[in-house]
Amino acid sequence: MARRKIAKRADDYAQWYLDVIAEGQMAEHSMVRGCMIIKPWGYGIWERIQRELDDRIKASGHENAYFPLFVPKSLLDKEAEHVEGFAPECAVVTHGGGKELEEPLFVRPTSEAIICTTYGNWVESWRDLPILINQWANVVRWEMRTRLFLRTMEFLWQEGHTAHETHDEAAAEVQTMLDVYADLAENVLAIPVIKGRKTAAERFPGAIDTYSIEALMQDGKALQAGTSHDLGQNFAKAYDISFQSRGGEMEYAWSTSWGVSTRLIGGMIMAHADDDGLVVPPLLAPLHAVIVPIYKGEEEAAALREDVDGMVTALRAAGVRVKADVRDHLRPGAKFFEWEKKGVPVRIEYGARDKAAGNVVVKRRDNGEKQIVPRGDVAGVVAALLVTIQSDLLARARARRAERSYVVDDYAEFRSRIVDGGFFHMRWCGDVSCEARVKDETKATIRCIPNEGDEDAGPCVVCGKGADGVRAVFARAY
Amino acid sequence: MARRKIAKRADDYAQWYLDVIAEGQMAEHSMVRGCMIIKPWGYGIWERIQRELDDRIKASGHENAYFPLFVPKSLLDKEAEHVEGFAPECAVVTHGGGKELEEPLFVRPTSEAIICTTYGNWVESWRDLPILINQWANVVRWEMRTRLFLRTMEFLWQEGHTAHETHDEAAAEVQTMLDVYADLAENVLAIPVIKGRKTAAERFPGAIDTYSIEALMQDGKALQAGTSHDLGQNFAKAYDISFQSRGGEMEYAWSTSWGVSTRLIGGMIMAHADDDGLVVPPLLAPLHAVIVPIYKGEEEAAALREDVDGMVTALRAAGVRVKADVRDHLRPGAKFFEWEKKGVPVRIEYGARDKAAGNVVVKRRDNGEKQIVPRGDVAGVVAALLVTIQSDLLARARARRAERSYVVDDYAEFRSRIVDGGFFHMRWCGDVSCEARVKDETKATIRCIPNEGDEDAGPCVVCGKGADGVRAVFARAY
Repeated sequence: MARRKIAKRADDYAQWYLDVIAEGQMAEHSMVRGCMIIKPWGYGIWERIQRELDDRIKASGHENAYFPLFVPKSLLDKEAEHVEGFAPECAVVTHGGGKELEEPLFVRPTSEAIICTTYGNWVESWRDLPILINQWANVVRWEMRTRLFLRTMEFLWQEGHTAHETHDEAAAEVQTMLDVYADLAENVLAIPVIKGRKTAAERFPGAIDTYSIEALMQDGKALQAGTSHDLGQNFAKAYDISFQSRGGEMEYAWSTSWGVSTRLIGGMIMAHADDDGLVVPPLLAPLHAVIVPIYKGEEEAAALREDVDGMVTALRAAGVRVKADVRDHLRPGAKFFEWEKKGVPVRIEYGARDKAAGNVVVKRRDNGEKQIVPRGDVAGVVAALLVTIQSDLLARARARRAERSYVVDDYAEFRSRIVDGGFFHMRWCGDVSCEARVKDETKATIRCIPNEGDEDAGPCVVCGKGADGVRAVFARAY
Repeated sequence: MARRKIAKRADDYAQWYLDVIAEGQMAEHSMVRGCMIIKPWGYGIWERIQRELDDRIKASGHENAYFPLFVPKSLLDKEAEHVEGFAPECAVVTHGGGKELEEPLFVRPTSEAIICTTYGNWVESWRDLPILINQWANVVRWEMRTRLFLRTMEFLWQEGHTAHETHDEAAAEVQTMLDVYADLAENVLAIPVIKGRKTAAERFPGAIDTYSIEALMQDGKALQAGTSHDLGQNFAKAYDISFQSRGGEMEYAWSTSWGVSTRLIGGMIMAHADDDGLVVPPLLAPLHAVIVPIYKGEEEAAALREDVDGMVTALRAAGVRVKADVRDHLRPGAKFFEWEKKGVPVRIEYGARDKAAGNVVVKRRDNGEKQIVPRGDVAGVVAALLVTIQSDLLARARARRAERSYVVDDYAEFRSRIVDGGFFHMRWCGDVSCEARVKDETKATIRCIPNEGDEDAGPCVVCGKGADGVRAVFARAY
């Protein structure tokens, strides 16, 4: 393996991101424009995100199902805002089985149209509600500018779609899933997020309200990491999800949808990776630890083998995903370098001198700390260390966000400071023209109006009017 | 829920199959021609098949990854047999982002073209081999006649793609995965299968050998339930997977591919379901058992509640996936009927009389047997019963297959008996014209030449020539 360089964050952040992905063997571009190949190391991380989220989706009462990849054009047309938002970025199938189709099929950019139509067939009375279904799927959106994980033409995601008897129930569902996403982000990905409501300009096409979780990346830009939509009765009316109510009336259901995608992996990279490459939180790491035996020649290797095998057994028994890197054609230094770039949380070094002393060297990837550990203690020490690393990563990301979160009440100050990135908590009167002006003048957008806190109302930071402006979070975003 | 009828197998097998799926709430047709909606109960079964198979795929040394949905037309064109086999049944994307594409994109019917191209980029020397990768994905094949699960335009599957240094290694991989599929079929789906080699006429387009597992359905038709292909160097040459060998020469790799799909669910249905609906093997059942409390009015219901909750707790602690069906608007009979149609392996009935006697009634779905069990023993009894049911289902399917497996050496006898279905073990000389004649005259095909047994060579059942004809399995197939 050639020893390639990773650009430094401070020098070229965009190149650094690409280098980290390439050198960490996470993903690569395919020959199909905008579509990526997720390599085993990257996919292993995605599988762990899926498992953690799927458990939470089921624990909150949802079931999985699967709906078709294709959406007939006429179906998408039924919800006016929705088709306006999505049709321009659809991939269109016009031929199948060697013939031109009577009606073109859109490759799903999202599945409200097809799923709501199905729910319309399933629902007759209030007893058939709620419907609480999720699907894991691929979707396609024709993006002009793509970036691995963050914005690709095809991406993998889950999309939940629910239908309810009342708006109160639907609104509660929207918050339940927002909480699930925040829990996933913070307690699995170790990325602190702000939960909040999007402005009308940033809503999902067809929704009456969109909520999101917003994270701050190391370059000071925001990343929208998950969304949960209150669709009101818009889709139920467009796709006829009507039911006989408890009172015997025909009513339209209230629906929601919510999703997170492989974009989360981009967020994980930009939240934790450093100039040496990936740093993967233990809960997501396909391997928690790698043992690198240090030897010259077969005789020295043989002397270490039994101890290494014993450590592997002990570590696995302690729940540690570990392997010994016994490749003969690579030197220890090359192995160190490779696992470092892949972000494996813990490295264990073991050579003749360590054996003589009865010790091993344990090195943390996240902060580079080394410790000497008695060989018999390695399983316990590493298992505990993984817990520490997971919480340290979150604490470090929180501290980084705190350093770059500003409460600002002066528009000129904001304009001069936004160039360095960060979250700006500023009062906004709610007027779309103030929002647009900020975007025009600074490229920053309102990421969300946080669900919690920020209740000190006052005049708008942009226009200076109104006394009931609420604090919103402004930032430049991916 | 309206009490609808399921057609009897003996009267109308095709209708029975559709009724079982509809009444068991497994799947339904979508408004997109040939694409199905997999409902939660059906998807829950698929998730268990996935988990069982994924564990086996990983245990045999493979990793998961993900490759693009789209295949450029020019890429598919590179392997002549492959494009001839698949291009006519592709869905074709001609427009994206509102513009006509310069080159049409095929929605993947299978991923050899894109994956082998990628491997070609990854592989430089023998040290980069083997590559052992699997993906879980959706694929699209434009089928004219579709049937839920068995043959749909879009289906879900896994496709493994491996590349090796030598043909011996690749050939061993093909058998390893065939064994994994047979293990899954028999020990999870409870479907006995024959492992064997396909004839040249039935090979995967581009393969030098295709192996399959073949199962016998209740109507006497065969179902090909999984395939494993030896691709020789055909794809490596077409997509340039070349490497520097240990000897320093440039060589082409040897590749394989193998897959099973949601078709397995169709096989599970047709192997075990009966005239009352689905029968789901315990290892695949989203619910192992349902407790139906029997009461009239709230007072009687309340008297049972604590015991029912206690049983749920005890059963779950014993590893039983159980729920209590406490829906008030349905009578016990309607609940019985619903869970029967869904094929839940065990039903537990509990009413006032049972409470007084300290018992519960436990009923098996597979054979209708009822037993009275002391309430305190229910967890242990049900957990043991699930193991019994799982093995009984396989034994019953084996017996059914044995009854309809025939060793025949007379072509006229075969022609008169094939109308009733079954596996016919008959000698074949290997001549493609004999194979074609059988197909023309009887609609039966050679399902496979079994890997094991059937070694009593002799003259061909069709032409009477040759003394080294091997026994092949002939049957009509789905």
